[in-house]
Amino acid sequence: MHSPAAKVSGYVVLMIVQIIFLVLFWLFVRYEKTALPRAIDAEDAGSANEHVSKYPQFQDIQVMIFIGFGFLMTFLRKYGYSATGFTLFMAALVVQWAVLMKGFLHMEGGKISLSLENIIDADIAAAVPLISMGALLGRTTPIQLLCMSVFEVALFAANEYLALHVFSICDCGGSITVHAFGAYFGLAVALMLRPASDQNEAGKLEGASYTSDIFAMIGTTFLWVYWPSFNSVLADGAGGERAILNTFLSLAAATVTTFVVSALVSHENKLDMVHVQNSTLAGGVAVGTVCNLLLGAHGAVLIGIIAGTVSVLGYRYLTPWMTANLRLHDTCGVHNLHGMPALISAIASAIYASMASVGEYQSELKDIFPAMVGTNGTETKIMGGLGRNATSQAGYQLFGIAVTLLIAIGGGILTGAVLKYTNFRNLKKDEHHQDEHYWEVPAAENKEEYLNMLAKLLDDDAANSNSQSAANFNWRPFLLRNWNAIVPANNLYVRGALH
Amino acid sequence: MHSPAAKVSGYVVLMIVQIIFLVLFWLFVRYEKTALPRAIDAEDAGSANEHVSKYPQFQDIQVMIFIGFGFLMTFLRKYGYSATGFTLFMAALVVQWAVLMKGFLHMEGGKISLSLENIIDADIAAAVPLISMGALLGRTTPIQLLCMSVFEVALFAANEYLALHVFSICDCGGSITVHAFGAYFGLAVALMLRPASDQNEAGKLEGASYTSDIFAMIGTTFLWVYWPSFNSVLADGAGGERAILNTFLSLAAATVTTFVVSALVSHENKLDMVHVQNSTLAGGVAVGTVCNLLLGAHGAVLIGIIAGTVSVLGYRYLTPWMTANLRLHDTCGVHNLHGMPALISAIASAIYASMASVGEYQSELKDIFPAMVGTNGTETKIMGGLGRNATSQAGYQLFGIAVTLLIAIGGGILTGAVLKYTNFRNLKKDEHHQDEHYWEVPAAENKEEYLNMLAKLLDDDAANSNSQSAANFNWRPFLLRNWNAIVPANNLYVRGALH
Amino acid sequence: MHSPAAKVSGYVVLMIVQIIFLVLFWLFVRYEKTALPRAIDAEDAGSANEHVSKYPQFQDIQVMIFIGFGFLMTFLRKYGYSATGFTLFMAALVVQWAVLMKGFLHMEGGKISLSLENIIDADIAAAVPLISMGALLGRTTPIQLLCMSVFEVALFAANEYLALHVFSICDCGGSITVHAFGAYFGLAVALMLRPASDQNEAGKLEGASYTSDIFAMIGTTFLWVYWPSFNSVLADGAGGERAILNTFLSLAAATVTTFVVSALVSHENKLDMVHVQNSTLAGGVAVGTVCNLLLGAHGAVLIGIIAGTVSVLGYRYLTPWMTANLRLHDTCGVHNLHGMPALISAIASAIYASMASVGEYQSELKDIFPAMVGTNGTETKIMGGLGRNATSQAGYQLFGIAVTLLIAIGGGILTGAVLKYTNFRNLKKDEHHQDEHYWEVPAAENKEEYLNMLAKLLDDDAANSNSQSAANFNWRPFLLRNWNAIVPANNLYVRGALH
Repeated sequence: MHSPAAKVSGYVVLMIVQIIFLVLFWLFVRYEKTALPRAIDAEDAGSANEHVSKYPQFQDIQVMIFIGFGFLMTFLRKYGYSATGFTLFMAALVVQWAVLMKGFLHMEGGKISLSLENIIDADIAAAVPLISMGALLGRTTPIQLLCMSVFEVALFAANEYLALHVFSICDCGGSITVHAFGAYFGLAVALMLRPASDQNEAGKLEGASYTSDIFAMIGTTFLWVYWPSFNSVLADGAGGERAILNTFLSLAAATVTTFVVSALVSHENKLDMVHVQNSTLAGGVAVGTVCNLLLGAHGAVLIGIIAGTVSVLGYRYLTPWMTANLRLHDTCGVHNLHGMPALISAIASAIYASMASVGEYQSELKDIFPAMVGTNGTETKIMGGLGRNATSQAGYQLFGIAVTLLIAIGGGILTGAVLKYTNFRNLKKDEHHQDEHYWEVPAAENKEEYLNMLAKLLDDDAANSNSQSAANFNWRPFLLRNWNAIVPANNLYVRGALH
Repeated sequence: MHSPAAKVSGYVVLMIVQIIFLVLFWLFVRYEKTALPRAIDAEDAGSANEHVSKYPQFQDIQVMIFIGFGFLMTFLRKYGYSATGFTLFMAALVVQWAVLMKGFLHMEGGKISLSLENIIDADIAAAVPLISMGALLGRTTPIQLLCMSVFEVALFAANEYLALHVFSICDCGGSITVHAFGAYFGLAVALMLRPASDQNEAGKLEGASYTSDIFAMIGTTFLWVYWPSFNSVLADGAGGERAILNTFLSLAAATVTTFVVSALVSHENKLDMVHVQNSTLAGGVAVGTVCNLLLGAHGAVLIGIIAGTVSVLGYRYLTPWMTANLRLHDTCGVHNLHGMPALISAIASAIYASMASVGEYQSELKDIFPAMVGTNGTETKIMGGLGRNATSQAGYQLFGIAVTLLIAIGGGILTGAVLKYTNFRNLKKDEHHQDEHYWEVPAAENKEEYLNMLAKLLDDDAANSNSQSAANFNWRPFLLRNWNAIVPANNLYVRGALH
Repeated sequence: MHSPAAKVSGYVVLMIVQIIFLVLFWLFVRYEKTALPRAIDAEDAGSANEHVSKYPQFQDIQVMIFIGFGFLMTFLRKYGYSATGFTLFMAALVVQWAVLMKGFLHMEGGKISLSLENIIDADIAAAVPLISMGALLGRTTPIQLLCMSVFEVALFAANEYLALHVFSICDCGGSITVHAFGAYFGLAVALMLRPASDQNEAGKLEGASYTSDIFAMIGTTFLWVYWPSFNSVLADGAGGERAILNTFLSLAAATVTTFVVSALVSHENKLDMVHVQNSTLAGGVAVGTVCNLLLGAHGAVLIGIIAGTVSVLGYRYLTPWMTANLRLHDTCGVHNLHGMPALISAIASAIYASMASVGEYQSELKDIFPAMVGTNGTETKIMGGLGRNATSQAGYQLFGIAVTLLIAIGGGILTGAVLKYTNFRNLKKDEHHQDEHYWEVPAAENKEEYLNMLAKLLDDDAANSNSQSAANFNWRPFLLRNWNAIVPANNLYVRGALH
């Protein structure tokens, strides 16, 4: 498994996957009408603008996926190349796969229509395996991650179709279909890949440095700022404006709460960067499913307060407990940022659905809760038919999250088993949380060389300087033995420091 | 004051504030009509798009507040957690408070109408205490900062109402109401919190590291890029396009000027990162109040050149003078980035107002200078009535900045007195500019432990290696005594370096 | 040349240039009609929105120029101030110059009309010298860079006019006129400034540190995310949507390919950050010229796969060859990121043009290939007249890239000669790739002082501790001799580490 051929085989498989994508695009994907030239004699329809009006929000989501998630995961002090690099790799693979997978579920005439909408959906789908990656960060090979993401996105597309088009639940910001799915799928994989019980202690590199913590704040702040776009991109009109307002207020309230609760429960009442980097965002997840509903500002703020509290307490008490008792190492704490807040969102959606009425939602009812309307021209097959009452819709919301959890956890266990027991290479304990096994890092491959050179310099100097005491001191073994203590982790990777 | 209870009490107060916000939202805030579902039988009004068309600019401003300001203040080498974290904390608190405070001034039927416009206004309000924070960076506790921001935003809202709706001044980009107010309020607080005259030297950590300076450039560049959105978001139509063009050109000219003047006045004619990080942005402030006026490209460029020059000279000569003579420590130099350029903007606004005529501004006169028009349907009470001539409008512009300065400085002195003389804990000199007093930093709480472990390793090694000379050398006290010289500041916080 | 006066003279010249710009703006530039107030009695035209609808894309491009390019070049471990700072300086100068230069080519009534379109064009023009800067990074003085950019942008504007309005080629995303021009101009300058053959080894600081590599990923990810805006900003309607879709898919495919090929060809099959930072973006360049054509998703993906492969192989094999044999040091590898992918794009444009027909492009043919239409009301002088057939258009595409290469390389050689043989100061070998010659860096000017102080501390300690062995050891010369080995590069710049 460690031979050069094995090292390369995973990448070769991914290249084949890319070429299969190419063929599938050629066979099945065509530009949608809005992206095609109008006939010369046609009138100016202007319908292309319909799609393109979502473009700024699409770009915000792009930033969340590629910069937000990528940098949020740079908090580990020797895993920054992987955090940003694998995010880019995974997202680039998944967006193509998601265009195809989601397209297959909505083909017309045997072809997939490609428009801006499809790549917005693809970006949202890319969030799913990136959330799962957070639960596994530093414990898998890139090949495991990428293969997982291919399985996961196919399953995600199926579950999303089930939830939205068969159960007909509302899930505007995707907390159920995206966040809960991604988090619990990832946790299930992490459970399958859990270490032996004698190897359950934290990895020696499983922590932040001062610099890596600030890099992670780039991720946090961009996710914070653009979260309203993620939640509102699929909503229209007034519902879209409410999604923006509610998400903004929920995030703000969750942030204030996070700081306060972090100070209250942390060691010496000091603030904890892990909470600040993550729990501040829990408000965005917890309001996701209901963000376009008539929550009122107070409803959004209340959800934010609850989410911030639950998330910080999760980091402080639940994650250590799961690590100790279940050997479930959730590196980024996705259970606290995505998992539990998504459950809160699902529950909130049941509560608000149970109170929904046509008197309140007027013309929007048919968009938000299509199954509650008699005949609404929807073409999808809705389970139990149309004309649900509010209580029934609430039940379906809970049913939706339950089925999502089932599929996510089941799929995660299966995927985890495949990653563990088939031909995939698994990382050893001491390979965790460091870039150098899969990346050329400055001077890292020359660590030995650096060391020898340093010792030689010191030896030579001792000789040249005629210093009795220094000459007597054997620097080389001293340096070798105390390497980690002497050279702070930050400086390990200094390419060319020897010149 | 240093007991655990005291440490926690400030945070508890902030939680209570958050809950009060929740109650106020519940009592007073309702979605505006555009964010509510249309009645089933209503026609498609499309008026929701009116608000949502500002959404991309709102997002730009969000980036400025949360990433721009946050990272600009990471330039201190051990204060990056606080810079990014407290920015997030303060902004999250202030946006809620601003929605309420500004809402109370514009209530209809006892309720505040909530739309995208309100949170745009709230984001702009968040800039105010963040500017003040720059003047105080590293010299206050987070509780002092947060409480200050609550007082300040209330006062800001009142002053803004006065300036725009009573004095009826023009201030499109907010240089008077936002930048001048925030800067001079902060400087007044800093003056109240000034050190005793025997403690006036610079803090030992009051400087940048190579890495922290590059982090700060993230802030600078995002502020630079999105500044046209900040200045233009409240302008409409052609005025909005002019605001974009003028701000862009003023920033460009200020940037070129900053580099040149920095090289001319700095030690050994080398460029100074402090100037590059800050004075390049002075063009955005200086053009703020007048950005939607008919400056012409040359007017914008001229303003930029003046602002860049004044700002660099301020950093080079005025700030050190104020520190030495007034003991006014303006950590980020907000006087040079926000204060003086805002004064330039106010003066420019008087000059351009004195030349404004209906022949020139045509249909826009009533939007830009409402008090210069006879009857314009405005409902606010304008001081001195309508029908001002150009000279009179120019006078009001100067009156507006004068009153703003008065209120800002008065309010700042009062707030500073409260922060200093009441029950707030004040930082001691040696607690300045470092995260570790309020944040769990990697290995920082274990500094002593790290030290001992390092010394032990070295001792053990000396013993094991049978090196005569090393054995004779007592590492521990040597390390303890020379800690700061041996371990460069960058590496102090290396969590887990002991494994 | 090294006297204080010489140091300053370059900056003074740049200030004069800025003032000349001011005068030119005053003489020639006026707001376009859309940015002027409407007459009081005019109807609401709403035409201003036409421009402002491009505003979000303009902001994306701003981020690419100022943050994307700036941070991409921070990968050198001691050149981060210059990378971000000179990007800001150069872009600020160039955008003004580009407004003027491009304006002179399209004057109406002796005046340049200023609207949002002009500053979009100016931002695109700013990319050109920034690309060239990549080829020269760390090997020139800032004055050389800035002066080069002034020459280059004038030539770029002329060549662009020639290519688009005389040869009438299609180049929607600017791969020919922007990327190929910038890359080959820069390479030509680099060739002229090539080192003597006994100084051809890599600079001692020409490499990344772990932290600087992650800073560079900020640049990469923002360029990746916003590249669709760069390519689509000048396209309209359906063509704009296709430009977005094609660019997105090409980037995604290039990214997957880059990771795979990087692993296949790199040492020990490890991923190389240089490839990940750069070659992932080659898909955006390679699809540029053809991004609004009817490529189909598969066409875009195929172009991405080719670009990613060529780019990585270029970094792995071609760049080292050019360095060794031509002494052409292409610091950022712009030949692999911009040069070769732009050639691919030009060839692709010839292929697709040769197949273009009115049956396919319908009403868009006149916008995309204006010279293929009989009478289309275009006012520019098209070489060879209107009514080209597809083959002829394909020929013109190839002619366009050939002329661009000729002008870029010729202009670059000329400019390089001026920079080398006239009065400009040239950097010496050991001044390459470090900030400290043009920037005040923390403690850098005090390197000697730092050293002495450290040695003194160690001496004092030896004396005080009565340690025989330590006292005998002469620290000072030891530290001086081994400075670079002892103090890792990252930590060189630690302002105030002595307190």
